[in-house]
Amino acid sequence: MRLISPLDYLFLALEAREHPMHVGGLELFRPPDGDGHGFARQLHVSLVRAPEIATTFTRHPGAAGASPRMLTWAVDTEIDLDYHVRLGALPRPGRIRELLEMTSMWHSTLLDRHRPLWEMHIVEGLEDGRVAVYTKIHHALVDGVSALRLLQDSLSSDPDERQLPAPFAPRPPTGHANYSAPSMPLLRSALGLGGDVAGMLPATARLGWRVARKRGMPLPMTAPRTIFNVPIGGARRFAAQSWSIDRIRSVREALGCTINDVVLGMCGGALRRYLIEQDALPDAPLIALVPVSLHSLTGTRSGNAVTAVLASLGTDHADPLDRMAAITLSIGKAKEMMAGLTPTQAIAVAASFLSPFVASSVSGFSQHAWPTFNVVISNVPGPRAPLYLNGARLEGIYPASIVMDGLALNITLTSNADTLDFGLTGCRRSVPHLQRLLAHLDASLEELEHASGCVIAERG
Amino acid sequence: MRLISPLDYLFLALEAREHPMHVGGLELFRPPDGDGHGFARQLHVSLVRAPEIATTFTRHPGAAGASPRMLTWAVDTEIDLDYHVRLGALPRPGRIRELLEMTSMWHSTLLDRHRPLWEMHIVEGLEDGRVAVYTKIHHALVDGVSALRLLQDSLSSDPDERQLPAPFAPRPPTGHANYSAPSMPLLRSALGLGGDVAGMLPATARLGWRVARKRGMPLPMTAPRTIFNVPIGGARRFAAQSWSIDRIRSVREALGCTINDVVLGMCGGALRRYLIEQDALPDAPLIALVPVSLHSLTGTRSGNAVTAVLASLGTDHADPLDRMAAITLSIGKAKEMMAGLTPTQAIAVAASFLSPFVASSVSGFSQHAWPTFNVVISNVPGPRAPLYLNGARLEGIYPASIVMDGLALNITLTSNADTLDFGLTGCRRSVPHLQRLLAHLDASLEELEHASGCVIAERG
Repeated sequence: MRLISPLDYLFLALEAREHPMHVGGLELFRPPDGDGHGFARQLHVSLVRAPEIATTFTRHPGAAGASPRMLTWAVDTEIDLDYHVRLGALPRPGRIRELLEMTSMWHSTLLDRHRPLWEMHIVEGLEDGRVAVYTKIHHALVDGVSALRLLQDSLSSDPDERQLPAPFAPRPPTGHANYSAPSMPLLRSALGLGGDVAGMLPATARLGWRVARKRGMPLPMTAPRTIFNVPIGGARRFAAQSWSIDRIRSVREALGCTINDVVLGMCGGALRRYLIEQDALPDAPLIALVPVSLHSLTGTRSGNAVTAVLASLGTDHADPLDRMAAITLSIGKAKEMMAGLTPTQAIAVAASFLSPFVASSVSGFSQHAWPTFNVVISNVPGPRAPLYLNGARLEGIYPASIVMDGLALNITLTSNADTLDFGLTGCRRSVPHLQRLLAHLDASLEELEHASGCVIAERG
Repeated sequence: MRLISPLDYLFLALEAREHPMHVGGLELFRPPDGDGHGFARQLHVSLVRAPEIATTFTRHPGAAGASPRMLTWAVDTEIDLDYHVRLGALPRPGRIRELLEMTSMWHSTLLDRHRPLWEMHIVEGLEDGRVAVYTKIHHALVDGVSALRLLQDSLSSDPDERQLPAPFAPRPPTGHANYSAPSMPLLRSALGLGGDVAGMLPATARLGWRVARKRGMPLPMTAPRTIFNVPIGGARRFAAQSWSIDRIRSVREALGCTINDVVLGMCGGALRRYLIEQDALPDAPLIALVPVSLHSLTGTRSGNAVTAVLASLGTDHADPLDRMAAITLSIGKAKEMMAGLTPTQAIAVAASFLSPFVASSVSGFSQHAWPTFNVVISNVPGPRAPLYLNGARLEGIYPASIVMDGLALNITLTSNADTLDFGLTGCRRSVPHLQRLLAHLDASLEELEHASGCVIAERG
C-alpha cells in the first residue's frame, strides 16, 4: 500500500463528471507498407501481450469516492490489458473529421477508478491508411508533459527498430529524472498541459501575489469576460492539426520575433475570427496564460522548470501586424518582469494567476469570478527528429488537455520534427464548432505570412 | 421545471462509477441491399436531423451530484443530436466478437448528467454487412421494458416502409398506457430488466415478508454464496446470441413444460458448466429470481403487471433431466404459492426478495449480506412478427441490463419473431470470460434436446 500524495489526491478529489482530470494525446502513424489494418492489429496484439507493466500503470485509488480510503493507492495485480488497450475503427470514409469526433468522445468520459487509470485506443480505418492511437491517463498518475515523454520514449528514431517497449512498460531511469524535483509536480501539473490546480497551495499563491504587486505586474481582473470563461459540462470536443515549422519560422524571421510569438499571433487571429463568428468578441483583448521555461527567462540552467506569463492576444486589432505588435510588447513586458525573480518566486507568481480558478473549482462559484486570463496556450517541446513505431513514422502528436470551470478552452501544441502539432480541447457545450478554430488558425497564419511579406515556400 | 419522482431520484442518487444505472439494448439489422455502410450512414443522418424529440429524451437532472437540486429535471432546449447519436465502426474482421467487445465498453461508462441521459451508437463494419445499433438510456428516464418497447415502436412490420419515426421522437399514446399504472414503475423497474431497487419502499417489502411467511414460502437465505454475489466494479462485459424458438419449443413439447422452464434449464446447465470451469460450483443449487406476469399466475386480466418468483436452477444435478425436474418442481411450487395473492401482495413479495440487495446498495455492506438469490433471469416479450427498419430486417434485439453489488450477472432475453435473443450482462471483474456462457447455453440446449429425445429439425 502506498499513500497518494496530497496533490494527486486533489486531482482525484476534484474530479467530477463535468471535470474529468485525465490528460490525453492523439498520435498518427504512417505504417511502412500502407497496411493500416495489419499494423493496428499487430500493435494491439503486441501491447495486450506486454509481459511487464510499470507500477504507475497498475495504480488506482484504494476506494472510489472522496473517502479517507482514497488516500492510498491500490495496485492491480491482475491487469486486464484487453480492457486498457482497445482496438477500434473509424466509420467510412475514415477522414480526420471522423477521428476527431471519436477522440472527443473518448476524451469526455471518466476513467474507471476500479482499474488502473489509463486507456489506449488503437484506431484503424483512416482513409489514407494511417493508424491513430489515442491515449488517456489520469493526471494523478502522470502529468501531461510526462505522458508525452513516456509516449516518445516508447518510439525510436530508427525506422528499422521493431522491438520497442510498450509505453506502459517498466523502463530504466532516464536523463529526465530532474522532472521529479520537489517543485516540479506543482508547476508541471499546472502549466504543462493543464493549467489546472497549481494554485492549490495557498501559501505559494499568496507569495506570488506579493511578488507580482511589488514588481508592478499587471494584476488579474484585466482579462475580459468571454464565452470561454463559464462553468463547463462534462463533454469535450477535440480538434487537431499540424502546421509546418518552416512556415512559422519564415514569419518569425520576417517579423524578428520568436516562434512562440508567432504561435500566439496565430491563436490571437484565430480566436478573433472565431469570436466574431459567434458574435462574442469582447472590446478588450483576450489574455492568455503562456507557460515559459525559467531557463529562457533567466538564462541560467534550471532544469526543466517552467513558470507562466500572462500575455495579450491582441484580439482587439483587426490588422495582423498591429495584433503581433501588441502580443510581442505584452509578452516582452511580462518576461522582463519575471526575469529578475528567483525560480521559486517565478513559480509562485504563476500559481497566483491560477488561484482564482482553483478557488472556483472548489467552491463552484466560477460564474461569479472574474477571469484572470481567458485561455491557456501551451507549447510543449516534442521530438526534434522523426520518430517511428515499428517502422511507422509518427506524423502527428496532438495533446488533449484538461479544461475547467472558467477555462473552457485549452490550446496545447507540441513540436514534432518539422511540424507544430496543435491539440485544441474544449467544453462541448461552451465552445461550439471548436473544429472551426483549425480553419481560423490556418487563415490566421496565412494572414501573417501575407502581412509580413515573407517567402512562402511550403504552401500548397 | 418538473420534479423528479422519488423512485427516479433514487436511480440517480444510487448511481456511482461502479453502479451505472442505465439500461441498454443491442439490435442487429440486415440491410435490404447488403450495403451496411450506406445504411448506417443514412440512418445516422436521418436520426441526427430528427425534427422533434420526445420530452423524455430532453431531460437531465437539474444539477449534478446528490444535491437537493437534483430533485428537479432540467430540460435541454438545444439538444446536440450529434452527441447523442454516434456513428462508429468495428475493426476488421468485424465479427460479433468485436461488436460485443465494443458494446461492453459502451455499457460500462456513465452517461453525462449535463446532457439528456441517453446515447445511440450506430455501428458499421460487421463482416456480414449487418448494422448494429446499441442504445443506452438512464433508468430514471425509462425502464428496460419500456425502452425495448420504444425501440420496437420505431420499427415497422412492413419491409417497404421508409418514413419511420426516430425512437426518440414524440409519438401518440399507444395501448401500452397501462404501463403507467401506479404500482408499475416499481415492479417494472425492479423486474423488467434490472431487478434492482424495487425494495426501496420498505413498507412494501415488510408487507411482502409477512405474506411470504404466512404462506410458508421459502424464505431467502437459502441461496448459496457464488462468485456472482460479490461487490462489483464499474466495467461490464456483454454477450449476446439468438436461439431458434423452434428448438426450445421441441424440448418444451417433449418434456411437457413451459418455454420459460426450458430457458431456465438452459441457464441452469450453462451456469453449472461455467461454475465448474471456474472451480466455483456450490453444493446447493443456484436460485434465480424470475419475473412472471400476474396474468399467468392468477388467470385474471391484470394489465401488464409482473411479479417475481424464486426458482432453483438445479445446478447440483449433473443429469439434464434431473435438473429440469428440480426446476419445474421449484417454479411450480413458487407459482402455486403466489397464485392466491392479490396483485398488491404478489408485488410486495417480489419487493421483499429484492430488499436485501437494496439495503446493501445503500450501506455498501453487500460483502456481508447473504444472497436471496444468485442471478436474475428475465424473459421479456418482444415482437411476434419480423420487424424492419427502413427495409432492414431486425435480426436480433439483445437487452443489456443493470448489475449491482451482490448480483454481478444478469440474463435477460426477449422473443423476436422466431428466435429467443439472450443478452448477458456481467461485472467485468467478477464474471470472467462471460462470453463462454454463450457456448455453455448452446451446449446446455443440445444436452436437453438429446436427453428429451425431441426431434431436432433446425440444428445445423
